[in-house]
Formats: sequence, structure tokens, C-alpha cells
Amino acid sequence: MRKSFFEELELSPEGYAVDLEPFMESLSWNDQGLIPVITQQYDSGEVLMMAWMSRESLAMTLKEKRVTYWSRSRQQLWEKGKVSGNTQGLIELRADCDGDTLLCLADQQGPACHTGRANCFYFRFCPEESQVVVSAGIPDPEDGHSQV
Amino acid sequence: MRKSFFEELELSPEGYAVDLEPFMESLSWNDQGLIPVITQQYDSGEVLMMAWMSRESLAMTLKEKRVTYWSRSRQQLWEKGKVSGNTQGLIELRADCDGDTLLCLADQQGPACHTGRANCFYFRFCPEESQVVVSAGIPDPEDGHSQV
Repeated sequence: MRKSFFEELELSPEGYAVDLEPFMESLSWNDQGLIPVITQQYDSGEVLMMAWMSRESLAMTLKEKRVTYWSRSRQQLWEKGKVSGNTQGLIELRADCDGDTLLCLADQQGPACHTGRANCFYFRFCPEESQVVVSAGIPDPEDGHSQV
Repeated sequence: MRKSFFEELELSPEGYAVDLEPFMESLSWNDQGLIPVITQQYDSGEVLMMAWMSRESLAMTLKEKRVTYWSRSRQQLWEKGKVSGNTQGLIELRADCDGDTLLCLADQQGPACHTGRANCFYFRFCPEESQVVVSAGIPDPEDGHSQV
């Protein structure tokens, strides 16, 4: 069986370069033409959120250096923070070994989560108690303390 | 319109607890009954990989404290490292604001990537050069140097 684009690259040494266009076309775009994107704060390592990109939003992100997703609920391009001001400046974009996930290293301005929390992952599983616990309240933008 | 399970929880304060079973049922399982999982090394913050869990693999992960995915290619449970020894001990499991992604904080033994690299995200986009560059070679297990 012929090896896939990504299988062919598995043994490549550090520094080996491939052309951007065929690489982008070889990514595992799903039935809706989307690929999942993990966004991580570039310096602290905090995982901020997971969202989706279309080919167009990926190209815009690389060109403008501002992270732009595809909104599945609104079915349109979603430049993160364009309305709220909570933008994500692109520091570096990566893809994984089989080309089905992107990792976006970004510089987040303000909170990443639409609830006002710093990141979206605020539910912590506590299986011993058969519970899930909210691990962060919503900070008050005025003083940084929790509003609730 | 009635608020969704996760919309109802948006304003919850830190420490608020919900029962595990209805929370798990309310997650956004896709058409194949799967949810994407980001796995991060708990202490360094390194994003190791992205994979998928079924309800059964999530329950096993929580019970056994060893990260178990659902392999879409093999269509079976996939206890990470069961064959290779490169296991992922579960430190903490989190879910995001709208319940469509999990974040697994794990203690990775050995490399996370099937290529032998420490993590799966070794393709770096270099849009200025219209290239994508391999950012890590495959270490030689004997001496930690690159094999290729």
C-alpha cells in the first residue's frame, strides 16, 4: 500500500522542509472542510481553548498573524477577539504527525473563554466523589476578583 | 429558548459541583459517540497529542487512572502505551465551557508520538518561506540523539 503524505515524512530529520501548499492540502480536513485547533498561550503553556479552522481561516491566520477560526454555530469566519478585544496574536502554528490537528501558540489578550474565564477548561472531574467541580469563577474585570 | 446544560453552568462560582453521570451524558459526543481529547504533560505544560474518547474509554480512564482512547483506525479501545510501554498516567481530567473537548493532564512515560518523538506536533509552519519544517528528529533511545 502506498504510504500517505504524512507517513512518508515520519522519518524526516529536524530541519527538513516541505512546501506549504501541498502540506495544507494534505491535512485531514473533515466532511465540513474543518480541522481541530488547540490554542495554547505561548509562554505559560496554558491550554486556552479548542476550536476549528477552515482552509480560509488557516490562510488568514498565517497571513495576518491573528488567530481566525471557523465558527460552526455561526457558519462564518471568526477572528478571535475582533468584537471583544480578546485577540490571539499568532506566535507559531504547528501540525501533528498525521496532519489531523493543529496547535496554535498564541499571545492571548484578556480572557480566552466567552464566560470571562482565562481559559475554557474550568470543569474538573472528581471521579472519587462522582462529581465535576467548577475550578474557576468569573473574574471581575475591575479588580480581578470573582464576581460570583 | 431553554438554556443548555453548559449554558446553565456558565455563571457558577469556583467550587460548584455537579454530578458526574449527567455531566458525562451532556458532553458533545459526535455522531460516532466520540469527543476530542487534548493530552498535556501535567508539569511541563507540553501538549503531547490529540485523540478521541468514547464513553467507555472515558469511564476506564477515570477508573484506572491510565489514559485510554478510542482508536478510530482500529475501532477499538486503545490504552495508550499498553503495547509500547509509553503509558500516560492520569493526573487530572478537565472539560471545556461548552462540553465539546476534554483536556487530560497526564504523566507521559517515554515518547508520546508513535514516531518516537516526545510529542506529535513536530511540523512548524513557516509562511514567510511558504514552507513547513520538521522541528524534531527521532531520538535514538540508546543515547537520546537523533537517529536520522
